[in-house]
Amino acid sequence: MTGESDRAPAPHPRRPRGRPGHTRDDVLRHAIGLFNRRGYDAASISDLARELGVTKSAVFYHFDSKESMLAAALDEALDALSDAVADGEQAVGGSGAYDRLRSTVQAAVTILVQHLPAVTLLLRVRGNSPLEQQALKRRRDLDDRIAVLVQNAVQEGGIRGDIAPDVISRLIFGMVNSLTEWYQPGGAVDEGTLAASVTGVLFEGLASDHGR
Amino acid sequence: MTGESDRAPAPHPRRPRGRPGHTRDDVLRHAIGLFNRRGYDAASISDLARELGVTKSAVFYHFDSKESMLAAALDEALDALSDAVADGEQAVGGSGAYDRLRSTVQAAVTILVQHLPAVTLLLRVRGNSPLEQQALKRRRDLDDRIAVLVQNAVQEGGIRGDIAPDVISRLIFGMVNSLTEWYQPGGAVDEGTLAASVTGVLFEGLASDHGR
Repeated sequence: MTGESDRAPAPHPRRPRGRPGHTRDDVLRHAIGLFNRRGYDAASISDLARELGVTKSAVFYHFDSKESMLAAALDEALDALSDAVADGEQAVGGSGAYDRLRSTVQAAVTILVQHLPAVTLLLRVRGNSPLEQQALKRRRDLDDRIAVLVQNAVQEGGIRGDIAPDVISRLIFGMVNSLTEWYQPGGAVDEGTLAASVTGVLFEGLASDHGR
Repeated sequence: MTGESDRAPAPHPRRPRGRPGHTRDDVLRHAIGLFNRRGYDAASISDLARELGVTKSAVFYHFDSKESMLAAALDEALDALSDAVADGEQAVGGSGAYDRLRSTVQAAVTILVQHLPAVTLLLRVRGNSPLEQQALKRRRDLDDRIAVLVQNAVQEGGIRGDIAPDVISRLIFGMVNSLTEWYQPGGAVDEGTLAASVTGVLFEGLASDHGR
């Protein structure tokens, strides 16, 4: 499914929107952008085809439905975040729970920025279909695994004990997820600086030398 | 506009939804709840009247339009947040910019929890009408005033200098605003504890003994 579009190249090089010959990934990037701007329910394949400058059938060459684009977008975000959490859980070399949690969050911020449109879409999913419910379940599972890392870090004494672990998890998710609302890739703050800033503020504020 | 409804009390005491004789504030609370659940654009006065168990004219006794309810809700949130920021700016007694900022954020969290439905509605406003644009402008003005407090605290050396002040402002807003997505008033965590937890994590993480 990564073949060329079934439409000949356009004769005019200055065509203002899109180009024919889109790859599957091109189509998906535009679909995700459209879903984020207009809302998934309100967006149509016709809108997407118009934006790409191709026919609807050229879109259907790559995806058999609007929902299969949503599925691909949500999988992209969830698979990448899942890898980041698994890496954190499996971190070895004598690091404690605080360090494992901190590196997991740093990796999650990096993933979030690298897959910003897909993660933004994921965070807006409200469970309006079985597909969306399944994505919400995967998201909750990831949140639960991070919450376990938080609990372990509190138990080990690496994270302050004066705040309930579930509140700590919520505060971490709140700050990290809010990045989708303002962060501009390619702007003044690069993704490595951002990830270091977020984890610096969070984990130096959460460290057990506070709150005793 | 705080008089009684123009409808006689219902004869049945177990009427399942709402009661007649609603005050203006009752109507506003239900309107805000409905706008948050269904979205302002999708919600109608008929929905609200049905939920309250009254006629549409009983609703119009208190508010002349759906937009006047939205205006009252947004003013409630913005007036309260504005008071919290003004108190922080005017704090005296030798406190530095770090302390002024910290007490402003703590006050803002308390306001957010006390006016949770109205603040939730405010945070969802996207500027779809002149009224919404005006609310967004007031919200941006408040954000700008907090950003000035952040800049002052960085300049005074109370807040770490290794993160750009505008990123610090965004991280503060991100954590604080995310409370509207999960905090349940009357639950296990009271509002004072929540405000202390949020400011504890943020300001101990932002303190200038980190990031040197």
